[in-house]
Amino acid sequence: MGKYKIKKENITEYVAGYDINDAKKRYKLRKIIKLASNENPYRVPWGLKQYLKKEIKNIYLYPDKEYKNTRNILAKKISLTSSQIILGNGSDDILELVFKAIIKPKDKILLFTPSFSFYKILAEIYNTKIIWIKLNNFKYNIKNILRKINPSIKLIIICNPNNPTGTYLNQEDMEKIINKCPQKTTLCIDEAYYNYTDADDFPDTVSLFVKYYKKKNIIVTRTFSKIYSMAGLRIGYAFSNSEFISLLDKIRIPFNLNILGEKAVKYVLKKDNLIEKYRQLNIKNRAFLYSQLNRLNLSYISTQTNFILIRIPISGQKIFNKLLKKGIIIRPFTDDNLKNYIRVTIGTYRENKQLIKELKKILK
Amino acid sequence: MGKYKIKKENITEYVAGYDINDAKKRYKLRKIIKLASNENPYRVPWGLKQYLKKEIKNIYLYPDKEYKNTRNILAKKISLTSSQIILGNGSDDILELVFKAIIKPKDKILLFTPSFSFYKILAEIYNTKIIWIKLNNFKYNIKNILRKINPSIKLIIICNPNNPTGTYLNQEDMEKIINKCPQKTTLCIDEAYYNYTDADDFPDTVSLFVKYYKKKNIIVTRTFSKIYSMAGLRIGYAFSNSEFISLLDKIRIPFNLNILGEKAVKYVLKKDNLIEKYRQLNIKNRAFLYSQLNRLNLSYISTQTNFILIRIPISGQKIFNKLLKKGIIIRPFTDDNLKNYIRVTIGTYRENKQLIKELKKILK
Repeated sequence: MGKYKIKKENITEYVAGYDINDAKKRYKLRKIIKLASNENPYRVPWGLKQYLKKEIKNIYLYPDKEYKNTRNILAKKISLTSSQIILGNGSDDILELVFKAIIKPKDKILLFTPSFSFYKILAEIYNTKIIWIKLNNFKYNIKNILRKINPSIKLIIICNPNNPTGTYLNQEDMEKIINKCPQKTTLCIDEAYYNYTDADDFPDTVSLFVKYYKKKNIIVTRTFSKIYSMAGLRIGYAFSNSEFISLLDKIRIPFNLNILGEKAVKYVLKKDNLIEKYRQLNIKNRAFLYSQLNRLNLSYISTQTNFILIRIPISGQKIFNKLLKKGIIIRPFTDDNLKNYIRVTIGTYRENKQLIKELKKILK
Repeated sequence: MGKYKIKKENITEYVAGYDINDAKKRYKLRKIIKLASNENPYRVPWGLKQYLKKEIKNIYLYPDKEYKNTRNILAKKISLTSSQIILGNGSDDILELVFKAIIKPKDKILLFTPSFSFYKILAEIYNTKIIWIKLNNFKYNIKNILRKINPSIKLIIICNPNNPTGTYLNQEDMEKIINKCPQKTTLCIDEAYYNYTDADDFPDTVSLFVKYYKKKNIIVTRTFSKIYSMAGLRIGYAFSNSEFISLLDKIRIPFNLNILGEKAVKYVLKKDNLIEKYRQLNIKNRAFLYSQLNRLNLSYISTQTNFILIRIPISGQKIFNKLLKKGIIIRPFTDDNLKNYIRVTIGTYRENKQLIKELKKILK
């Protein structure tokens, strides 16, 4: 028996989007277009900046441990009660709390591939047995999923829409999964990108939750890191039944939110028009990218998010390096089945044009 | 077997300092003196506010996952290497990582009483067997401690100076503990208040670490929540051997720091004169409180921190309620052995005067 319970070599390293400052230094660049981490390319709304400037005077104080006010506002916004809401240091924090609350070593969990890499890392840290479901042509296949669900599965994590494919499970299929979910299985739906969706049949998880929460242990996580322009402030939230939420709440560190992030939520939740504008801009910019990729004869996966998975004729790592030198950061993959793909955040019109221009040069 | 691994009723609730806004609402007060959470009563330095205002434009971006820059600056500051440094979402985050990395259910851990309540909560969450050491007249007793250390102990947590007593272990005793520490036992020293110390024999943990880190698993945690006026930004750090740090680093959530907190560290670490000024002010204000408490015939424990544990003739909860009505928040306790004590943060001269005035009225 070693000194430590967890062996470092058993845990996969999380790969973050390449850092802007590292890129600037490495290639002596002044301007960088970062299309690697799916942040809001329209940056921080003016009003939010002004609002936060006024709040800086309070950073010497601990935040309210219960963040009652923000929790109430958030609950009202999505028509639930505040006892059904938890906030976290990003939704990653809440995902970890789910593992911490329910997972024992060797417990079975159901994960999809490809999907968000952090689930696998948590599964390794918590020493679980992962049951993998491979996406079919990067899409969820409901028959495959239903076949794999059984009472021995402790936790299912579905990223919807899925990162890095941009594909999604619709309302009907999600309801089938919920119905199939055994009583002691927790269904965790990660909706980090749900604000960007425009499919008519994208699940309304709040009403599904309301319909099933008494019988099924469902938790839905969301984030303020994407459309809300707050990735640097690390705020995510989740809704679930009060019993589960109160457990997660009790096992979190007491002050998991920073005071500015908490305040920012109160501001951005009042800005529905602005958020809708960002969503529409993303749809417009997506259409532009689709058309340009078609012209370049590059195939891509239709997306419900603010990123696109693009198939490329050379290795993604090569494209990444070439674009980096030009000041554009995109996301390559190391997994075998994604070697010939890159994931690019849908940027502003200018950023997208620049990306296409450079891609064209590289691929000609 | 229930749905969840952890039972909520087994976990002690963390009690935070009473919230300023709650106090304002409850008693319709305009001004509150908060002496409950040991924040810096001189609030946020002007320069830090200006610095952070300029950084707000970047909150739409994820922070650097490795926080290389801040880690380097911090390492240089305390003459260690950056591979020996980890930052956390407050030092609570790092304390939790220590449990996560090393603790298996039923592992024995050594804790002191009374001490910081969060250690016990972590011990409960991680299902450990706690070996308690009672302080002697609120002081560490080295003989008691040495007697209890043995190879079956997985983790020892020493809060130094101790919260809520303000007492401390000196350099000589700390070295004895380190020497007694078995090879597979981790010694965690929580130095949240070390910036406030003025005892000549307070341990120099950096040099003790340098002397022993090859043989002993020592980790020292510190925080930017107290003298650095950054409680709301949630940044703590720790130093330990690179092997342990790299494990903790791998099992933390990828973006555990918010971008503004990380930036703020870079600013405040340049302000040694200001921090020294705060330390001197605390010493002066402590002397004032000591003299006033003597005049009121109230006994107290000599403190190395920015708070004082005061013995009172009635219950702490009663004093708390009476002071709250007057707009002063202090910290009472529910533990039996602390029922007749209150912990008060050493405030500004005005705040302390106000506290003494109200205490006098209540106790006469």
